[in-house]
Amino acid sequence: MDFIQRLIDIVKCFWRRILRSIMGSRGNHSNKSRELAARNEHPVEAFGWAASGETGLLSPFKFSRRAPGEKDVMFKVFYCGVCHCDLHSIKNDWTGTKYPIVPGHEIVGIVTKVGSKVEKFKVGDQVGVGCMVGSCHSCDNCTNDLENYCPKVILTYNSTYYDETPTYGGYSNIMVVDEKFAIRWPENLPLDSGAPLLCAGITTYSALKYFGLDKPGMHVGVVGLGGLGHVAVKFAKAFGVKVTVISTTPGKKNDAIESLRADAFLFSRDKEQMRAAMQTLDGIIDTSAGVHSLGPLIGLLKSHGVLVVVGLPNKPLELPVLPLISGRKVVAGTAIGSVKETQEMIDFAATNNITADVEVVSMEYVNAAMKRLAKGDVKFRFVIDVANTLKAL
Amino acid sequence: MDFIQRLIDIVKCFWRRILRSIMGSRGNHSNKSRELAARNEHPVEAFGWAASGETGLLSPFKFSRRAPGEKDVMFKVFYCGVCHCDLHSIKNDWTGTKYPIVPGHEIVGIVTKVGSKVEKFKVGDQVGVGCMVGSCHSCDNCTNDLENYCPKVILTYNSTYYDETPTYGGYSNIMVVDEKFAIRWPENLPLDSGAPLLCAGITTYSALKYFGLDKPGMHVGVVGLGGLGHVAVKFAKAFGVKVTVISTTPGKKNDAIESLRADAFLFSRDKEQMRAAMQTLDGIIDTSAGVHSLGPLIGLLKSHGVLVVVGLPNKPLELPVLPLISGRKVVAGTAIGSVKETQEMIDFAATNNITADVEVVSMEYVNAAMKRLAKGDVKFRFVIDVANTLKAL
Repeated sequence: MDFIQRLIDIVKCFWRRILRSIMGSRGNHSNKSRELAARNEHPVEAFGWAASGETGLLSPFKFSRRAPGEKDVMFKVFYCGVCHCDLHSIKNDWTGTKYPIVPGHEIVGIVTKVGSKVEKFKVGDQVGVGCMVGSCHSCDNCTNDLENYCPKVILTYNSTYYDETPTYGGYSNIMVVDEKFAIRWPENLPLDSGAPLLCAGITTYSALKYFGLDKPGMHVGVVGLGGLGHVAVKFAKAFGVKVTVISTTPGKKNDAIESLRADAFLFSRDKEQMRAAMQTLDGIIDTSAGVHSLGPLIGLLKSHGVLVVVGLPNKPLELPVLPLISGRKVVAGTAIGSVKETQEMIDFAATNNITADVEVVSMEYVNAAMKRLAKGDVKFRFVIDVANTLKAL
Repeated sequence: MDFIQRLIDIVKCFWRRILRSIMGSRGNHSNKSRELAARNEHPVEAFGWAASGETGLLSPFKFSRRAPGEKDVMFKVFYCGVCHCDLHSIKNDWTGTKYPIVPGHEIVGIVTKVGSKVEKFKVGDQVGVGCMVGSCHSCDNCTNDLENYCPKVILTYNSTYYDETPTYGGYSNIMVVDEKFAIRWPENLPLDSGAPLLCAGITTYSALKYFGLDKPGMHVGVVGLGGLGHVAVKFAKAFGVKVTVISTTPGKKNDAIESLRADAFLFSRDKEQMRAAMQTLDGIIDTSAGVHSLGPLIGLLKSHGVLVVVGLPNKPLELPVLPLISGRKVVAGTAIGSVKETQEMIDFAATNNITADVEVVSMEYVNAAMKRLAKGDVKFRFVIDVANTLKAL
């Protein structure tokens, strides 16, 4: 059996090389030849929506998925969240985007096929996939259940898989994923409003947990009330933490206090409000992706407080040293969470009825959704109803 | 007895008020009237060297010290380290300097008088005083032996004491200090080369300890090989940690490796060297007071590594977020250490034969020393031989 599998792998590898030699290597061939490669390099036909250039405009796209290996799970995509990362990636804001790109890393669906050695899933199970689909399995991070920090982590899209083919995300009809990177989805957790937990949820949950900001009675600030911020508030409240939302938009006060049950709201451009709140917070989860000075936020921290940056501005932030030093304060960054912690977070969310506030949209609406997302015009996450609205190609 | 003490306090307070009403309040009176106040507000005559303006030029200065209270220790100053803080302060680099200023917060001497309730010292004991001489005694930090982070901490100089008089530092013949803020000085620890431990030593010791960078087998970087940096190397080596010195001055390699027994040296302007060392360090103690980007240093850290800033640049530093996030890294600041930790550090230094490398100079040389310090022309700390060279006024 092993011999046959090896033979199949050799044939596959050989076939890919031939394809590449015809179409040019991934690094330098044209979009057209890449699209052709995407369509043919794997045996399973797939379709979705992709961006093919820096305008970020998404349009229907035919490609292929690998046949499930013995540890793989294949699933039909039901819903996929529209993360701010998707917007940055399709527009090449962070550089490094390889077109065509099929975004989407808040993916939930139903298992349709499992490999012979899959243990966690059976056909018909609900399943989720977040931001990663592979890692090296041997580095310190991988061996300590921190594969999200593996230097060779393979992201769900715009990354290169072990077999050297590009990864494509969840704005598509089907996914094939190593079960190691698939999350068991609790029966009572909605698929649509639960989907954003796979990036927005785990990012903020992990930040709160790792930096010890999950203790009842603590006081935590949440900067920005978007996809990440609103989920951060929900997790923090579920932990029994007092929450102050900090925003540049005074109009978000109502959402913060009334809808999300935050305890307080700070309009960060009001110096008087900011001054009055100095040295009151044990920690801050900063979800803002805009360039901003960290000084005023550090000022809000008590001694030994921690400011956890989870947004990703594309320029360096200003860090004044005196307020950092004078209270032994910490500025830290975290990126999503491990598979193990993601499962823990999803189970916690199911137990505590935590979901994102979502606006479910059709696949055709995705470009309009991106435009609205860029303006912050969504409460608080778009989720694409893939199963019902993605048309077959 | 209590009644008499209270009466004395009332008379003192009354006398100070009269003095102030004659000479104007501290905030707005002239240097001349401040000098007059300094000379008369306390009963014990004292002298030292002070700066009277932003040139930072130090010159002989007559002032007064309080008579030791029941918990106070009076001591003759033997040696005082010349810290970079002194240079910044006399030149008003950080703003907020109140002239005349007598700098010096690495002070060692011999006890000459003790108050009736002093428990830690007797006349003839060796004693040290670092950066602080008072705090509120009631805040969370104070009650947790972290009075160095007390918002009302009273610094050894350029601060205002409980009795509203200015504090004056160790470039002077005598000190009077609450025993709570005085350090017992081990018999075998030299007074001259030990003095800089009271700021440079505790700052780096506390940073290494609090952030867990004191475990044998760890690999720690030390940025900058000045007063703080060279002591950081010594403590880290004593902890059994592997040390890499990181400097913008390639000529410091020899000092780092040969004199200080660091394990490696990185010339931080050599991109190739920096690239080769990426993701190799568990932590970094950044002693540089110059404005510099944190990006290259963060790049040297392993995942979950910590960059502890202990220098104090007068402009914000650039903090790129991606390298912080992608390895759950931390940038932190620490300021000196508590009295308790300073005592622990001094005892550790005595046990492990750790002292600073010093150039002992006369009081008259201090302005020349400041000029050389500004250029980094000292290995690695000037210490003023106060007892032998400060002339009585």
